[in-house]
Amino acid sequence: MSVAAQYQAFQQLGLKLDMSRGKPAPEQLDLSNALTGALTSYLAADGTDCRNYGGGVGLPEARALFGQLLDVPAAQVVVDSSSSLALMHDVIVYALLNGVPGHAPWVQNPVTFLCPVPGYDRHFSICEVRGIKMINVPMNAEGPDMDLVEKLVAEDASIKGMWIVPKYSNPGGVVYSERVVQRLAAMKTAAPDFRLMWDDAYRFHHLGERKLAVANILDACVQAGNPDRAIVFASSSKVSWAGSGVAALAASPANIAWWTKHAGFRSIGPDKINQLRHVALLKDVATVEALMEQHRQLLKPKFDAVLAQFQHYLGEVPGVSWTLPEGGYFIDLITPDGAAKRTVALAKEAGITLTPAGAAFPYGVDPRDRHLRIAPSFPSLQEINQAAQGIALSLRLALEG
Amino acid sequence: MSVAAQYQAFQQLGLKLDMSRGKPAPEQLDLSNALTGALTSYLAADGTDCRNYGGGVGLPEARALFGQLLDVPAAQVVVDSSSSLALMHDVIVYALLNGVPGHAPWVQNPVTFLCPVPGYDRHFSICEVRGIKMINVPMNAEGPDMDLVEKLVAEDASIKGMWIVPKYSNPGGVVYSERVVQRLAAMKTAAPDFRLMWDDAYRFHHLGERKLAVANILDACVQAGNPDRAIVFASSSKVSWAGSGVAALAASPANIAWWTKHAGFRSIGPDKINQLRHVALLKDVATVEALMEQHRQLLKPKFDAVLAQFQHYLGEVPGVSWTLPEGGYFIDLITPDGAAKRTVALAKEAGITLTPAGAAFPYGVDPRDRHLRIAPSFPSLQEINQAAQGIALSLRLALEG
Repeated sequence: MSVAAQYQAFQQLGLKLDMSRGKPAPEQLDLSNALTGALTSYLAADGTDCRNYGGGVGLPEARALFGQLLDVPAAQVVVDSSSSLALMHDVIVYALLNGVPGHAPWVQNPVTFLCPVPGYDRHFSICEVRGIKMINVPMNAEGPDMDLVEKLVAEDASIKGMWIVPKYSNPGGVVYSERVVQRLAAMKTAAPDFRLMWDDAYRFHHLGERKLAVANILDACVQAGNPDRAIVFASSSKVSWAGSGVAALAASPANIAWWTKHAGFRSIGPDKINQLRHVALLKDVATVEALMEQHRQLLKPKFDAVLAQFQHYLGEVPGVSWTLPEGGYFIDLITPDGAAKRTVALAKEAGITLTPAGAAFPYGVDPRDRHLRIAPSFPSLQEINQAAQGIALSLRLALEG
Repeated sequence: MSVAAQYQAFQQLGLKLDMSRGKPAPEQLDLSNALTGALTSYLAADGTDCRNYGGGVGLPEARALFGQLLDVPAAQVVVDSSSSLALMHDVIVYALLNGVPGHAPWVQNPVTFLCPVPGYDRHFSICEVRGIKMINVPMNAEGPDMDLVEKLVAEDASIKGMWIVPKYSNPGGVVYSERVVQRLAAMKTAAPDFRLMWDDAYRFHHLGERKLAVANILDACVQAGNPDRAIVFASSSKVSWAGSGVAALAASPANIAWWTKHAGFRSIGPDKINQLRHVALLKDVATVEALMEQHRQLLKPKFDAVLAQFQHYLGEVPGVSWTLPEGGYFIDLITPDGAAKRTVALAKEAGITLTPAGAAFPYGVDPRDRHLRIAPSFPSLQEINQAAQGIALSLRLALEG
């Protein structure tokens, strides 16, 4: 049967599948249903009535938990409301309007961020909407092309920041090597107020048997004499509940004081009751790791299904490849140049919603139109199998056209 | 006994009382303890799994509830996470960096806000830290001095906004008259992108038997041909739990679309589970009003105690007066010129923490140094009686010095 005929047969199944976002599946959310009854007292360990205003840096026990999870002293962690993306956004807003500690507001001059690509579309959207220019930096197996990064940041004082997803990067699954972490910490930047936006989104989100680790960026920055360079972001969104978790920011004492001051103008404190619930549920590193192992058991078969379908339908197709992630939420399907958009369109006609081609690049433009971000987490295993087949057929048909 | 002797006797009680912030008392927070068990399903009425990402405008049932509470169509309400102050802050940030619909970013030119005084210190702090100049406008019995407001906004195109607490204002307890609301809606502004920051913080927070109402500002703006002028903010902070409530923003369709777009860059949605809890607890206007009547029963005796002590100790003191609020969280104690700071210092030496003198004014400067914001809600009734006595004695001693 021809590819066109197979595609048409698939299309006639009349499926409606969404593979566009890295959302946990309901069964994953079920793993944290104990949150509902987790609250045993309104009081924090220090006696704070968590129902009332205040506590802008987060509860001591929540800071201790995230300190342990992120391998950072609790005093260098703040715990906020549910969204780590919001923390990143606000750090950029505070830097634009007020400047990072000891420096002028960014907004007074053109601001540029380096963006390893492919990367996380929501990072790039923040820059685009808030007026920050972006420069693409290619990703290699161990992280971004560091020769290029070092050259750019040394030359261009408008480069004030860089997006990093250090482990199981979105969407390429890259794990930053120790050498790359050290170079990022130590490189000479023309801008004295340069910041690494270190989005540790998938720290515990292993898919393989190996639990890969990335060097501690805050320690590396201290050792390199740039203690204020990195700001680390994390959340429980893909650990407990994606819409109702808690988020954390870890950084140098100067950056923590700066964030706390500015966040204190914005609100009279985070939802501390939800922090209490999360401390009760997540407890410590061992408890989190056990929970993440349950997530892994649910996710791994879905990733395996996609990879098996890709191997079956695309294994022999020249110029097509895909990543074999050891963690995170995505597979990066790489097509021959110029085939990604057409594949997304064909998949849509076959009932499969994919992340728009180009989404993983600043301004939504993949210069070679060849990256497809595949998100296998949300649909059921059966749907995943079907969707992966449909995507593969769409790509093959695109290549024939 | 001399005032000095009475003050010394008070001081020797060695009390430690905090009258500085408008925080609900634990008994008030107890009224909403049913929030803990309020969650009966993870699903919203439309089937949304509230544990997952998404829903940037808030759940339909939460929007319907706040629409009913604010007398606005649900489609013109968004419900977010816990802090209405954060919504106000973010509106200003989006306007500074991106401009309100159809207009240039505010940050490109000097920006000024009108500030009715005395007013809410956290409003003024947002302006101060984010680089917005403030102009004081005196408050009268029915709202700000509208002749002055109309003159200023007509002349000065840098005036892009004005802070409003329309009912039971913080700290003066002023209830805006219909005439003032209409003039605010209809006045000619030199800036086409002028916004009323309408902080409806005390809409249901009556202290008296009368439940005072303020004219609907969004309707008034539509009728005056300025539909996008007002943005209304509210939250459940002093209805349910102050640290873990839900906040809402109500505005014209254009402003709602604008807010939704910009908030969507910041986060992948609010805590919808907490919205479900609040819909279950607060249900409708009647339920909220019944809950607020319970708050009133707890608060009224505390306000009465302060007023009685003031009458007893200060009733005969020339130049001293205070407000008799019919709602809200504060009493404004007005001293002869130049005595407020000294009173706060003496109160502190007697173990009573007051809001810093001047806090109710932009830049913390009360030009006549005569306003003291008294917050009777948090301490116990006995503590309130003692504190009010101590404040009165501190003021009398200050006037003797």
